[in-house]
Amino acid sequence: MVDITHKINTLREATAIAIVRTSSEETIKALQENRVPKGNVFEMAKAAGLLGVKKTPDLLPDCHPLPIEYTGIEYEINGLEIQISVKVKTIYKTGVEVEAMHGASIVALTMYDMLKPIDKHVEIGMIKLQNKKGGKSSYKIDAE
Amino acid sequence: MVDITHKINTLREATAIAIVRTSSEETIKALQENRVPKGNVFEMAKAAGLLGVKKTPDLLPDCHPLPIEYTGIEYEINGLEIQISVKVKTIYKTGVEVEAMHGASIVALTMYDMLKPIDKHVEIGMIKLQNKKGGKSSYKIDAE
Amino acid sequence: MVDITHKINTLREATAIAIVRTSSEETIKALQENRVPKGNVFEMAKAAGLLGVKKTPDLLPDCHPLPIEYTGIEYEINGLEIQISVKVKTIYKTGVEVEAMHGASIVALTMYDMLKPIDKHVEIGMIKLQNKKGGKSSYKIDAE
Amino acid sequence: MVDITHKINTLREATAIAIVRTSSEETIKALQENRVPKGNVFEMAKAAGLLGVKKTPDLLPDCHPLPIEYTGIEYEINGLEIQISVKVKTIYKTGVEVEAMHGASIVALTMYDMLKPIDKHVEIGMIKLQNKKGGKSSYKIDAE
Amino acid sequence: MVDITHKINTLREATAIAIVRTSSEETIKALQENRVPKGNVFEMAKAAGLLGVKKTPDLLPDCHPLPIEYTGIEYEINGLEIQISVKVKTIYKTGVEVEAMHGASIVALTMYDMLKPIDKHVEIGMIKLQNKKGGKSSYKIDAE
Amino acid sequence: MVDITHKINTLREATAIAIVRTSSEETIKALQENRVPKGNVFEMAKAAGLLGVKKTPDLLPDCHPLPIEYTGIEYEINGLEIQISVKVKTIYKTGVEVEAMHGASIVALTMYDMLKPIDKHVEIGMIKLQNKKGGKSSYKIDAE
Repeated sequence: MVDITHKINTLREATAIAIVRTSSEETIKALQENRVPKGNVFEMAKAAGLLGVKKTPDLLPDCHPLPIEYTGIEYEINGLEIQISVKVKTIYKTGVEVEAMHGASIVALTMYDMLKPIDKHVEIGMIKLQNKKGGKSSYKIDAE
Repeated sequence: MVDITHKINTLREATAIAIVRTSSEETIKALQENRVPKGNVFEMAKAAGLLGVKKTPDLLPDCHPLPIEYTGIEYEINGLEIQISVKVKTIYKTGVEVEAMHGASIVALTMYDMLKPIDKHVEIGMIKLQNKKGGKSSYKIDAE
Repeated sequence: MVDITHKINTLREATAIAIVRTSSEETIKALQENRVPKGNVFEMAKAAGLLGVKKTPDLLPDCHPLPIEYTGIEYEINGLEIQISVKVKTIYKTGVEVEAMHGASIVALTMYDMLKPIDKHVEIGMIKLQNKKGGKSSYKIDAE
Repeated sequence: MVDITHKINTLREATAIAIVRTSSEETIKALQENRVPKGNVFEMAKAAGLLGVKKTPDLLPDCHPLPIEYTGIEYEINGLEIQISVKVKTIYKTGVEVEAMHGASIVALTMYDMLKPIDKHVEIGMIKLQNKKGGKSSYKIDAE
Repeated sequence: MVDITHKINTLREATAIAIVRTSSEETIKALQENRVPKGNVFEMAKAAGLLGVKKTPDLLPDCHPLPIEYTGIEYEINGLEIQISVKVKTIYKTGVEVEAMHGASIVALTMYDMLKPIDKHVEIGMIKLQNKKGGKSSYKIDAE
Repeated sequence: MVDITHKINTLREATAIAIVRTSSEETIKALQENRVPKGNVFEMAKAAGLLGVKKTPDLLPDCHPLPIEYTGIEYEINGLEIQISVKVKTIYKTGVEVEAMHGASIVALTMYDMLKPIDKHVEIGMIKLQNKKGGKSSYKIDAE
């Protein structure tokens, strides 16, 4: 684990996105109309994601525990895909990229788990960092 | 949560794959030659994945806790990508698809976390079920 | 911890109820119309409760880990109170009373946490076992 | 989750109380004389409560993780009831009300779990905030 | 992780012992007379050990999750040392040796943590398996 | 739990050591040549130790949660023994002795668990604090 004792606290933000790919318009409609038998997918996945962000250092060996001071989770439907966006903030010595990525993966996996009974071809299409601020290298990844 | 009290135990298997995309041959070489500053990426990610599979019901609200009786994790390098394959087995009333998917995501995220300092463009390219056995619908997903 | 190695598996059910007491009709309306600033209270608390039931043996020292095979969570509004009902099932050697009680407490605490910014006098009015089935003493608690 | 990046650290305290109601004097005597078959109820429940306070953000989705800098747990017997008092302190941007409430619920549930074999009518009578200090609204709840 | 899907359930027991070495008779007396400032050491450590046994598969990557059906924790004082004995039982496909060892280590570490303010030279002298039953190799380790 | 609200942050370091005793040169060779059937013991145990250090306050009731800012794990083979050294750093109000001790125990237990199939007489020979810095009593334990 990298030694961060000498670093200083600064405001850090990171946004990660994950894509959940369904295989039919019926799945998307069931989601939008809250008719998925296992329950309210967007809200359940959001709760799981909020908890998941906080559990990141329990799962990733090299990840420093840090004070999660904000997590926001949003959804956007594009055709047969749902784009999950997870934004995390802290004021600490390291960034929250991995926390945002992990949160996005947990939201996506919860959606997969809840949609599985009605759509056997759901998959997670991608999980990536969209942008981050703070630390030495703030940047926005372009071709988003 | 689906009521499974009436179901019977059968042998269940599931294999999930995740893709980690690096952006340079140097990253792949560092991985292969075990020169990544944060440590032995493949072994560390494997340990995280073995633990991650077992923690699936702690993170996904609707997922039944079940006895994980086998987890195997393998890597395959294809150009700039690493394909992670996670196979899980149980003898229980429900399948282990979500456990395999979650394990694959944790392996991929650990790799991302460890490679980040040497390659800022790593991303997780996909997480999906490759095949499953047992239960009413055994199948192998074709275009794998 | 009680030795249960000699006991046999039977179907066990338990339902626990918890009461969340708000202090104004405005709080109840905000809940019903999904206008609470922190989010969808009923769905978020349900997700937390589903996870909480599974974590019971992590928190209570003497409690045996067991396969949670069903959890159902329901709400009923009575005046200024919300009654939470958590039903849990397993097929195992011990009952699921404590799991149902713990689930009900986590649902109630999540509601408290989310309602606190709009109602400073929310409290948890009671947590108790409503009925249980299986094992040597099935019963329904009467004056419910 | 509420964004607290702009807030400043101050000393925060919160005390929550929970009531465990037994149904007979024999239960209270067994407690006082440390004759409960499952073990030393007050000490075991205290240990569970100390751990429970620290696990609050693992269970409640919207709750910020924060540095628990003090937890104190006390008991008071009143007739057939035991009053549990859990006091928590931190120096941070948000309060510790929910942590104190969660700690009180875990102490109460551990007592319920350990007393259940000797008293089938134990229930948790109430969990509420008794007072808090720090932040914009310090107050003591009156009719305590 | 070893594949155990083909194995059959049998009764398994394991007992592990750990030694906590103090550096003065005053420490032992404070323990026996329950005068340690941090609280009741034996009871607190027992609660931590009961929970610790159940968390073993969360901490050790290769360890199968299994139904803990009994845990018993005992202490014996020999001069300046405390011998901790942790016995675990299950009916499952693999043994509980590691669970007993992990439980013994958590009991010992809790004692260390609580005794540290009054005795700066406490150490854990040894953690080992004392005996196990069930599976293909039942045995009692001799020079105990 | 000790009240630390009045204390100030300083740099704290602690190093703990644990000894794993094998019973044959063959075990040591298998370790060195990475031929242990359960996998790469040193790397797997290191990953488990990194996670274990972070989980210390989840397992030990009286232990304050704190920001782990560095963990380093090293091995040294001496005859039939492996000495594990775990160094932890934080900038906080209390020390990291217990975190280092807990990390060392988890590394040792993971090694025990992985070596058990090839050497039935592995045991953990000792876990102790080697030195600590920061706080009122910095010292190095001599006869190391």
